[in-house]
Amino acid sequence: MSSSAAVAVLGGGNFGTVIANMIAEKGREVRLWMRDADAAEQINAVHENRRYLPGVSLSEGLIATSDMAQALDGVDIVFVSVPSSAVREVARQARPWIKPGQILVSTTKGIEAGTFCLMSEVISQELPDARVGVLSGPNLAKEVAQRELTGTVIASSDEQLRDSIQALLHSGYFRVYASSDTYGVELGGTLKNIYAIAAGMSAAFGMGENTKSMLLTRSLAEMSRFAVSMGANPLTFLGLAGVGDLIVTCMSPLSRNYRVGYALGQGKTLQEAIDTLGEVAEGVNTLRQVRNKAAEKEVYMPLVDGLYQVVFEGAPVQEVAKRMMLNQQASDVEFVLPRS
Amino acid sequence: MSSSAAVAVLGGGNFGTVIANMIAEKGREVRLWMRDADAAEQINAVHENRRYLPGVSLSEGLIATSDMAQALDGVDIVFVSVPSSAVREVARQARPWIKPGQILVSTTKGIEAGTFCLMSEVISQELPDARVGVLSGPNLAKEVAQRELTGTVIASSDEQLRDSIQALLHSGYFRVYASSDTYGVELGGTLKNIYAIAAGMSAAFGMGENTKSMLLTRSLAEMSRFAVSMGANPLTFLGLAGVGDLIVTCMSPLSRNYRVGYALGQGKTLQEAIDTLGEVAEGVNTLRQVRNKAAEKEVYMPLVDGLYQVVFEGAPVQEVAKRMMLNQQASDVEFVLPRS
Repeated sequence: MSSSAAVAVLGGGNFGTVIANMIAEKGREVRLWMRDADAAEQINAVHENRRYLPGVSLSEGLIATSDMAQALDGVDIVFVSVPSSAVREVARQARPWIKPGQILVSTTKGIEAGTFCLMSEVISQELPDARVGVLSGPNLAKEVAQRELTGTVIASSDEQLRDSIQALLHSGYFRVYASSDTYGVELGGTLKNIYAIAAGMSAAFGMGENTKSMLLTRSLAEMSRFAVSMGANPLTFLGLAGVGDLIVTCMSPLSRNYRVGYALGQGKTLQEAIDTLGEVAEGVNTLRQVRNKAAEKEVYMPLVDGLYQVVFEGAPVQEVAKRMMLNQQASDVEFVLPRS
Repeated sequence: MSSSAAVAVLGGGNFGTVIANMIAEKGREVRLWMRDADAAEQINAVHENRRYLPGVSLSEGLIATSDMAQALDGVDIVFVSVPSSAVREVARQARPWIKPGQILVSTTKGIEAGTFCLMSEVISQELPDARVGVLSGPNLAKEVAQRELTGTVIASSDEQLRDSIQALLHSGYFRVYASSDTYGVELGGTLKNIYAIAAGMSAAFGMGENTKSMLLTRSLAEMSRFAVSMGANPLTFLGLAGVGDLIVTCMSPLSRNYRVGYALGQGKTLQEAIDTLGEVAEGVNTLRQVRNKAAEKEVYMPLVDGLYQVVFEGAPVQEVAKRMMLNQQASDVEFVLPRS
């Protein structure tokens, strides 16, 4: 792998654009692939992604394209940053240009309906010869674009992949920590969207600092309980992709998941919340998948159960919220003192 | 133990008063011991602790006294909520009335200078026949007094003690979770005061959500690293007494530790910060003890080292802060992927 080879980023949303721009600013050529040819052309003309990252000047080393062949020609590292519903199709589309041993890093969070595959698993299925990693952490794209000091996690069982990504992305304001627990890191980034709905919902009721902190901690207990049942390491949830990402998502009133929760907390229905937002929040899909998997595996998830009843069964939010927080009061951390 | 025996709370600060009042409201007689006889008399006359908890009506079942014999006569459970510098002396003073097997629960956070004893250890040394537990969590006293939904942790290796305290304190708004990792729970509540100084300092510089979340997570990594070196379970830091208490302390601009940090971040000296606050924050003492112990045990604590240089050695805050955050960038959670 030559350090001067180009890098590709598939997906021109705000996070894909920021990652592409960071790498381009370090002097590497970057191809930013997006479906929309007009949008690509505009980015190349004005060096700005006016739709997803308005006001941020993009490096001239960043070349946008809607041509997959052009995007992937001669690159050594590929980031996948398309919406979760498009990951499988985009991976298939990229297949002809992916070489054996090629590095792919997913930044997309979500669970595929039906298969319960996380996005790195989808990529590995479609590109079985590739080496796959996951990038996750408390990374609001807008703040990264403003060069706010930010920490992220590269997770992979492949040490050389982790080292390559640390070297590629690391800068004075962007810190890249490593983890070998790919599944835990990826699941943390995915599950947090559910608990952002709960945080928004509780905010609509108005709550003090004690309650906010308790909700965050019990969310963490529940997400780590589920993750461990799926094979993750509970200690991953102490890190940037666990508690770090949970904090930033649950404290950010601008996230779509938080706003859906806030609307529900005000007594709106899911349809009314979606009508206001103009789109479905990822956490709503994740909630459905996780609730079904938890039921199948008999994992105790009172927050997920309560949210599911409100979101999909129209249960009265005040009543469910009260029940959610007043459930079983047993162990603080069940990996320390098992629940009786 | 009869469930109708009285309970004693030693220490009439805001947390001691709130605990005493919660128990009294559940119908138990409570003796609230404090050094100042006039303050006790005033509480009994007006049913309000005007100095430490103004505006909160106290139950008539709460009896304040400055007489230790009266406070401890016939009680089955004793809470210790005096300042850390007074715990050893108060435990000695209580000794004549403590029966073998008596339950004592410490709510005081701090490290004894010289011995590095936590407060429950001080109590156990002075009262070797007592059964000792620790209460800790994200519990702003004022919010508990306002009956905001709050979660706390009772930690003890003694299951019967944990069950007694859960039954005693549990209510519709106060949730008591259990842990067997007494040392981890107590150390978490103590160490968080250090990181509240760091949070206040960084707030003085102005920082985005990504940076705040990164600082909290790296603080958690550092406190759990130290705690594990002292024998605690790292998973305790996933709970209310770890991340929960850290969040509430670091997000509360009113805490003394946060305010010391904020003043330092503005370029003031420790003396100037103390002059403004009128007292030394507990975190400043804890910082000194922990830095020395970490040096002795060779535990890597870049945040503690940096704070120590600013607080005690007058190092330039901007420069140190930059160095603190730009230190070793290795493993996200070293209990998952060991630091190289």
